[in-house]
Amino acid sequence: MKNKFIYFFITLFLWFPIITLATSNPGMVVIQTDFGIKDGAVSAVKGVMYSVDPALKISDLTNEITPFNIWEASYRLYQVAQYWPQGTVFVSVVDPGVGTHRKSIVAESNNGYYFVTPDNGTLTLINDQYGLKEVREIDETKNRLKGSNDSYTFHGRDVYGYVAARLASGKIQFEDVGPKLETPIVKLSYQKPFIKDHKLEGTITILDPQYGNLWTNIDDKLVHEFDIQKDKLYKVTVYYKGQKKFQGSMPFEHTFGEVKKDKNLLYVNSLMNLSVATNQKNFAKLYHVDAGADWRIEVEQVKS
Amino acid sequence: MKNKFIYFFITLFLWFPIITLATSNPGMVVIQTDFGIKDGAVSAVKGVMYSVDPALKISDLTNEITPFNIWEASYRLYQVAQYWPQGTVFVSVVDPGVGTHRKSIVAESNNGYYFVTPDNGTLTLINDQYGLKEVREIDETKNRLKGSNDSYTFHGRDVYGYVAARLASGKIQFEDVGPKLETPIVKLSYQKPFIKDHKLEGTITILDPQYGNLWTNIDDKLVHEFDIQKDKLYKVTVYYKGQKKFQGSMPFEHTFGEVKKDKNLLYVNSLMNLSVATNQKNFAKLYHVDAGADWRIEVEQVKS
Amino acid sequence: MKNKFIYFFITLFLWFPIITLATSNPGMVVIQTDFGIKDGAVSAVKGVMYSVDPALKISDLTNEITPFNIWEASYRLYQVAQYWPQGTVFVSVVDPGVGTHRKSIVAESNNGYYFVTPDNGTLTLINDQYGLKEVREIDETKNRLKGSNDSYTFHGRDVYGYVAARLASGKIQFEDVGPKLETPIVKLSYQKPFIKDHKLEGTITILDPQYGNLWTNIDDKLVHEFDIQKDKLYKVTVYYKGQKKFQGSMPFEHTFGEVKKDKNLLYVNSLMNLSVATNQKNFAKLYHVDAGADWRIEVEQVKS
Repeated sequence: MKNKFIYFFITLFLWFPIITLATSNPGMVVIQTDFGIKDGAVSAVKGVMYSVDPALKISDLTNEITPFNIWEASYRLYQVAQYWPQGTVFVSVVDPGVGTHRKSIVAESNNGYYFVTPDNGTLTLINDQYGLKEVREIDETKNRLKGSNDSYTFHGRDVYGYVAARLASGKIQFEDVGPKLETPIVKLSYQKPFIKDHKLEGTITILDPQYGNLWTNIDDKLVHEFDIQKDKLYKVTVYYKGQKKFQGSMPFEHTFGEVKKDKNLLYVNSLMNLSVATNQKNFAKLYHVDAGADWRIEVEQVKS
Repeated sequence: MKNKFIYFFITLFLWFPIITLATSNPGMVVIQTDFGIKDGAVSAVKGVMYSVDPALKISDLTNEITPFNIWEASYRLYQVAQYWPQGTVFVSVVDPGVGTHRKSIVAESNNGYYFVTPDNGTLTLINDQYGLKEVREIDETKNRLKGSNDSYTFHGRDVYGYVAARLASGKIQFEDVGPKLETPIVKLSYQKPFIKDHKLEGTITILDPQYGNLWTNIDDKLVHEFDIQKDKLYKVTVYYKGQKKFQGSMPFEHTFGEVKKDKNLLYVNSLMNLSVATNQKNFAKLYHVDAGADWRIEVEQVKS
Repeated sequence: MKNKFIYFFITLFLWFPIITLATSNPGMVVIQTDFGIKDGAVSAVKGVMYSVDPALKISDLTNEITPFNIWEASYRLYQVAQYWPQGTVFVSVVDPGVGTHRKSIVAESNNGYYFVTPDNGTLTLINDQYGLKEVREIDETKNRLKGSNDSYTFHGRDVYGYVAARLASGKIQFEDVGPKLETPIVKLSYQKPFIKDHKLEGTITILDPQYGNLWTNIDDKLVHEFDIQKDKLYKVTVYYKGQKKFQGSMPFEHTFGEVKKDKNLLYVNSLMNLSVATNQKNFAKLYHVDAGADWRIEVEQVKS
């Protein structure tokens, strides 16, 4: 009688690792680069990743970051990461200094994501918004695609993609990446938003490029503190390096459809930051404004 | 002896749900938007979907629909859906009225696909071609990304993507989406093709944007009825709001290579609709013509 | 006692095919086309593939090959294939002769990949670099999407995508594709690199389109033979059909960051071919040069 039990449990036991493997969630890697999608660069990176583990789930954040624009890369990670399953490994390669002495790092954020990237400022906004739990420097003597030592210009394929795939697939643990980074990570500087003299001021951090909306770094807490109210009119001024580029009045609304087509509005965007748009038109193109550390916005209530 | 059988079947029985899970087909979601691929919007939607179920298969139809062009969105669904496995969930977000009182719906088509979309005309051609079995309005009190109630401008992420993922993964059934839609869906108007006075007339519904071919809504049944024949010459006239924009003679052929490079031809395209092209050149650019409800085509046989 | 063993092994045996299926690597298909990503063509191809087998892994190499540019298609396959897992099935559809009498083939390369494509020169560089083990002509009477016989213009969907999916999923073996191709494959002609009169000469095979770098077909063996050395200056001349289009001196470096921003350099790219770039600028745009069989490069050492 006892023997029967034994065989039963031996069967269960033998199958366990195989079943676990088959049903476990696959590792997830999300790629962001400025490589574009017209050539084979992104596909070479994905090939390296699937060669590490064909069961990986690989998804593109975007490969159309403006070439060399680290700020934009930083913003896109901040925009997207929180919506992905915890444990997702992001690999971001916008790397004007490829082959020079900038460091290669992997960071774990306090909200549970991993970021594989050159240490050049890409993690500025993730660090400010969520904080980094630990940062490690990639030890390239251990963690580098085999046979790639003579290649100096494609670390996205030879180092970052390879390490991200190994980490996401569980072939290495975070600790195996390399030693803890002793110095702070590189950060890009930008002006935080504030209220002064009954004016709400901030930076136009980025464009919503498909629709031309301006997204600022003024978050909804500051919007509430300034007591912006639905359907009321506000005077909006946009400056580039201190020079006025746009001024106009517009209402604050919840969404585009609450003003007529072609009319401007203030609203809180999907990341809960104050934004400016023209309903069904491109505000940035219409008024020749752009985004970045040199672009500032000022909002005050129109007296009635 | 009986006992041995029992253990054998207990083993089988215990493993059954796990094995089923591991071998069952994953849910499939196909995304269509006008978000573009330069920023993080599409990736935020995918992150929400994989957070619902990491085993989902997610594929892009296109994220480059001309902004706010609902007709184009409707055409692309009609062009593609029939080639996907039955049960595939399409989520289409071209939503100029986001945040206004347009409804959010899920439709099941008679040929076995699901469509999650604002009710703004996106399903016009799927409805006309295949018919809709049932349409339900999304109950956003139950079916909305948790914590997104203060976000008014990104229903693609907060409602449509989330609902599509829950439906495709089996976490909700079609009935759980919300109540049956009592009113008819919104439909875009367009002129159906016809034969009159020995002329074959129709609408230029869409461009094949990469090659500049004109695709009409004249289907192969009407082509046969009009008795168009291979290698014969036809006079083709294109009108925009009643004004002549192109007129020329060209043969009807099966495929591009049957005329010389740079020569025009009539042919039946991959959706079995009459089309116009220039072999290895861009007809639309060469002759400054476009597509849409205002663009009409007239075909008649050249007398010999 | 013996009976107990029997039941134990019967259990193992019964589960074996199911488990194997669940844990086996999925077939991988990599798609390359000139279809663009604004319409539904690529998604129709993917729908056909997933209808063959929903477990397939499908990835895009690029769908932005310059329309009808077979050379570029050939280069991208050469650039990428070697980084993918062996057994990956590449389907490349750049097909100016669709519907004419060009053949449809599947090739197995000596380094273990499959290529499904029209026989129009797409395999030129894979053939020259790795060699082809065997080439078979697709028998379209057996291997064609059901119901697509009246469609003459979309072999990417009806033939190539369908066959690639069937091969990758194991539903057919390579031998089932059709008979061995008796004639050689179509090859594009180009000039191989050489050293003559203390000059290193080659073809500018392709641009790195995102950054404007020139990639030549001068490989690192020839670079070593010519004894190019780091930090030394070289005179670089670019010709188009024999006419001088650029001449200038620049150092040979390992990577971009070793020269100042806006400065030119020679380097060995990620495919180990000699290349020309401007650090953080677009060399091709700055000097109005391009790539292709008519674009030649000449390198000689600057006498010091």
